[in-house]
Amino acid sequence: MIKYPTNKQVVASKKTSTSNRGMILEDAINQSNAYYLANDRAVIYKKPTPIQIVKVDYPRRSAAKIVEAYFKVASTTDFNGIYRGKYIDFEVKQVANQSKFILANIHLHQIQHLKKVHQHGGIAFVIIGFTGRDEVYLMDCAHVIQAYEKRETNLSYDYIVNNGKLIKQGYLPQLDYLSVVDSIYFNTEVSQ
Amino acid sequence: MIKYPTNKQVVASKKTSTSNRGMILEDAINQSNAYYLANDRAVIYKKPTPIQIVKVDYPRRSAAKIVEAYFKVASTTDFNGIYRGKYIDFEVKQVANQSKFILANIHLHQIQHLKKVHQHGGIAFVIIGFTGRDEVYLMDCAHVIQAYEKRETNLSYDYIVNNGKLIKQGYLPQLDYLSVVDSIYFNTEVSQ
Repeated sequence: MIKYPTNKQVVASKKTSTSNRGMILEDAINQSNAYYLANDRAVIYKKPTPIQIVKVDYPRRSAAKIVEAYFKVASTTDFNGIYRGKYIDFEVKQVANQSKFILANIHLHQIQHLKKVHQHGGIAFVIIGFTGRDEVYLMDCAHVIQAYEKRETNLSYDYIVNNGKLIKQGYLPQLDYLSVVDSIYFNTEVSQ
Repeated sequence: MIKYPTNKQVVASKKTSTSNRGMILEDAINQSNAYYLANDRAVIYKKPTPIQIVKVDYPRRSAAKIVEAYFKVASTTDFNGIYRGKYIDFEVKQVANQSKFILANIHLHQIQHLKKVHQHGGIAFVIIGFTGRDEVYLMDCAHVIQAYEKRETNLSYDYIVNNGKLIKQGYLPQLDYLSVVDSIYFNTEVSQ
């Protein structure tokens, strides 16, 4: 089970709750990645949030303190790494809406990035979490790219259920998305 | 030719000049990656600098301003992506010392990361730039891992020349390191 926000405090708590919910799904992926890494199954990391640093102070010799910086729009996706010898790349999105996934949640350059990765022989997909349903799906990037190119504005929940695969939730890993990757991209189920 | 710092102003100018020099080599790699991407040769990006955000202000609804943050130690390397269907991962270091590369310049967890990537079938290496010599070498991660495991403190310039490969510098790409990757990992020279 993914823990949805209850008493958990985040720093930027004044921000819209949407991004906080996103964080929780990301945490589950990060925990799963740490588990995969520890078990030598894959080497996958979340990229740091891109920040534009404007001003840095040096109150002490050893510690640089950033006192003015801004969030930048990411030029790629959040996660990448290597699995079973293949380059793997994906974006993670959590949505409150129970009936559809609004495509504007993924930036155009992220779509273009996933397409490039696919063209170069990598494994590229999106992980979409439906908060209210406590369901998380993995769907190949082709579906999102196609919808974008058809200028659709969203993908329905039913479409995602039919074209994606439900990721099993558990204790370790919290979200076993690599088993879904096995079944979609390698046509095998790897027993653990 | 790589442009070494002349009149170029960087934000954190009070910091040690070592990191600034590192930036210039990084710029050359970033420019080369943009060239490779535009020419559909590879999809390789620099990861954002990892930052620990402590406090965020919201002076306007639309613009979050980070007012307290600190640099974090990177858990992985700076660059990764996909090239010729393979996962590629590397660290870039520029050194002022003309006779050797001090191994402490690469963190232990970065070495461990490169080793993991290699074990999982990826291409992992380091790019080392000797500022004073205006020479940049690409060397497979095995050499750095081996030196670390033998508890050596540095790799001599001669060792790097003999075990690495000189990267050709030019206009576009500024540093054609993928041609060296071709010759080391694919046993081919790709004509452009």
